Amino acid sequence: MKQIHIGILGLGTVGTGIARLLAENGELISSRLGAELHLKKAADLDIERDRGIDFAPGVLTTDPYAVVNDPEIDIVLEMIGGMDIARELIMKGIENGKHIVTANKALLATRGNEIVGRAAQKGLSLAFEASVGGCMPIIKTIRESLVGNNIHAVTGILNGTCNYILTRIAGEGISFEAALEMAKAEGYAEANPSLDVDGYDTAHKLAILSAIAFGMKINYEDVYIEGIAALTPMDIEFAAQCGYRIKLLAITKSDGKSVEARVHPAMIPFTDLLSNVSGSMNAVTVTADAVGDMILYGHGAGMMPTASAAIGDVVDIARCIVAGGAMRVPMLGYQMEHIREIPIKPMDEIETHYYFRFSALDKPGVLARIAGILGEHDISIKFVHQTKRRTNGAVPVYMLTHQAREAQVKQALDKIAEFDFIPERPVLIRIEAPEEQKSGQGE
Amino acid sequence: MKQIHIGILGLGTVGTGIARLLAENGELISSRLGAELHLKKAADLDIERDRGIDFAPGVLTTDPYAVVNDPEIDIVLEMIGGMDIARELIMKGIENGKHIVTANKALLATRGNEIVGRAAQKGLSLAFEASVGGCMPIIKTIRESLVGNNIHAVTGILNGTCNYILTRIAGEGISFEAALEMAKAEGYAEANPSLDVDGYDTAHKLAILSAIAFGMKINYEDVYIEGIAALTPMDIEFAAQCGYRIKLLAITKSDGKSVEARVHPAMIPFTDLLSNVSGSMNAVTVTADAVGDMILYGHGAGMMPTASAAIGDVVDIARCIVAGGAMRVPMLGYQMEHIREIPIKPMDEIETHYYFRFSALDKPGVLARIAGILGEHDISIKFVHQTKRRTNGAVPVYMLTHQAREAQVKQALDKIAEFDFIPERPVLIRIEAPEEQKSGQGE
Repeated sequence: MKQIHIGILGLGTVGTGIARLLAENGELISSRLGAELHLKKAADLDIERDRGIDFAPGVLTTDPYAVVNDPEIDIVLEMIGGMDIARELIMKGIENGKHIVTANKALLATRGNEIVGRAAQKGLSLAFEASVGGCMPIIKTIRESLVGNNIHAVTGILNGTCNYILTRIAGEGISFEAALEMAKAEGYAEANPSLDVDGYDTAHKLAILSAIAFGMKINYEDVYIEGIAALTPMDIEFAAQCGYRIKLLAITKSDGKSVEARVHPAMIPFTDLLSNVSGSMNAVTVTADAVGDMILYGHGAGMMPTASAAIGDVVDIARCIVAGGAMRVPMLGYQMEHIREIPIKPMDEIETHYYFRFSALDKPGVLARIAGILGEHDISIKFVHQTKRRTNGAVPVYMLTHQAREAQVKQALDKIAEFDFIPERPVLIRIEAPEEQKSGQGE
Repeated sequence: MKQIHIGILGLGTVGTGIARLLAENGELISSRLGAELHLKKAADLDIERDRGIDFAPGVLTTDPYAVVNDPEIDIVLEMIGGMDIARELIMKGIENGKHIVTANKALLATRGNEIVGRAAQKGLSLAFEASVGGCMPIIKTIRESLVGNNIHAVTGILNGTCNYILTRIAGEGISFEAALEMAKAEGYAEANPSLDVDGYDTAHKLAILSAIAFGMKINYEDVYIEGIAALTPMDIEFAAQCGYRIKLLAITKSDGKSVEARVHPAMIPFTDLLSNVSGSMNAVTVTADAVGDMILYGHGAGMMPTASAAIGDVVDIARCIVAGGAMRVPMLGYQMEHIREIPIKPMDEIETHYYFRFSALDKPGVLARIAGILGEHDISIKFVHQTKRRTNGAVPVYMLTHQAREAQVKQALDKIAEFDFIPERPVLIRIEAPEEQKSGQGE
């Protein structure tokens, strides 16, 4: 049986998962692939630790260049993470004619165009299913299954840490800080959680999805990013009373001319399946002209789900090697000459629905003054709720709006914040209502 | 740009959708594929009807053999449906060296092994993503994305007509017959709805999924099939009170030795996302060793979603042609020599949880007699509810059981049915509780 030689860079959680999957399910994979995936080398700084895997003699090495320079190795799996060293090793592998599989979303989001460009020049594959949504085959689905579709939007819960925290706040009415501590205790959050809770990780993934959905260069710089640290149980509870859950969403949409790409907390109606995604699970909705709405749901991270995605990529590449064919699916979904620089719309030009919470001193005429400012900015109110529950002498006023423009909303809130009866900065949460089905209807 | 020549057999709903997608999104598809999909011929008995598509001169023909015998055509899309003629045309196409794309689940379920075998001998592809779950890429996900996984179970809502009917019964408390009439009026059900409501269509799809999930020959003969016609609003309402919805499920599981394959109404807890799939939508959960649970959700039928799936298959094949490589992914997911005859477990050997409803005359000691029989058959009761609501002089007794064996359950119900205080045949609905996660856990 033909052998495909594999090298792994980094035996952390995911790298170890890949080695384990190759060891445990190798025979099964061969019966599907018709070739053997042979782990030739695996590099890590620590090759002494017992990872519960019987590596063959000579496989383990502390020298990553022993992997990327090995003339026999066909496919290199970069599972080190981080930026400079990972990039250098990937580029070296490409120069040496290796196909690359990676889960490194931060690197792809920021240096992906350069790396993909070089791989394409050399006729090599760089595959990255494991970089977005763990085991969910979102990259494959967009690039292959939906190849006949104009994609209108991709909307996802792409960070398990944030979703876990939001689920705990909603379930137990605790603060963000308390939920974050629980997430750390459960192993869902890092000691420095900023990459997750401030939305950067989600934005890395979104930049990749925007590119493959719309045939544009990867553009992380222009993604709007807002994290979940400012969310309060008060807002989450009021959202629930109105039939919404709050999730950290990655949203990218195209109207055929420009693209929206934004990461922020959003209220989603209970009727949308995404609002029912709880704990550390991930899910993503793709809206496209032929299929309407399609949803994928699964473990967005973790050792074995991510390893599974990487092995899927390895087998895709191995099948091309076995068949003697060239790179089959273009890395970013489109032929390189069709990938354009499509501008991402400035956040000010976004139009959506909004939730506001004002802390207002309880005086007559307050609501009229707020409503007046909103009206002047073309913001039409759908729903208002004033309670008598006092916080620091003020009462909360909740509002839901019809569709409004972000720039107008910001200006209006700035003006409202200046009123002396508004002691705190108003809270704004965007509402992501399911769009009317554009197509995909039928029996 | 290289041209790939395509022929369509049958311009019904899906065939027309494919022609429309090629016309409307052809340029987009080319920018992704790097080749042009050229519709060379399309055959239908009626080529006069206006389908809203500008076919080039000479494309339309009433002779299907003009398609399968055209020496230039690379890929034939069989969208006629039905058995004998479809099979004959597919086999003729294969003999002539054409790759085949089909949505014909009935044909695949019953004659798939023969057809796939012949295509494999000739080194050709036969692709059938459109046959199961409409636009949901369940075939691709199992065969490609989950290639590194031992698959434990596939559980799906695969028939939109049934799900629409069950959603209406649950929402409005109407009878099956009334909901079926609504489904007909809305275009969700055929004049003769048996194929859908009696579970055959779901079973066709399940037979295909079992094969690719477990590396077994397609075996439709041994799938257990029970439809939804006997379900009553009474059972659906009681299920809801206990936190369950009733769905027509396709269930296939493997313990590594034997396989379960069954289609029947099942109670699913609200906490399972499948229970929230309403209307004509489809969804399927795959449970596998590395990824844990993964769910796909989307339109399971309809013109454009099904056309989208077929075009995905066409492009997969076209990419292999463009790359000059051979058939890349084996048709049934495994190399032909690894496909085994795995027996499907007889229904009597299944173990699951059960819901029973007994109509009992309201006399003392009734419950003790029923419970006695169940106990004798090793059926342990989890929950009992007796109401005073009389129907034809009898009161309903509801029960939920712990795990029990189907053969014992049937014997027990037969005995209970003999009691003179049980005027009607007891009702049985199986409960599909989410299994404990076997793996796929992690951050």
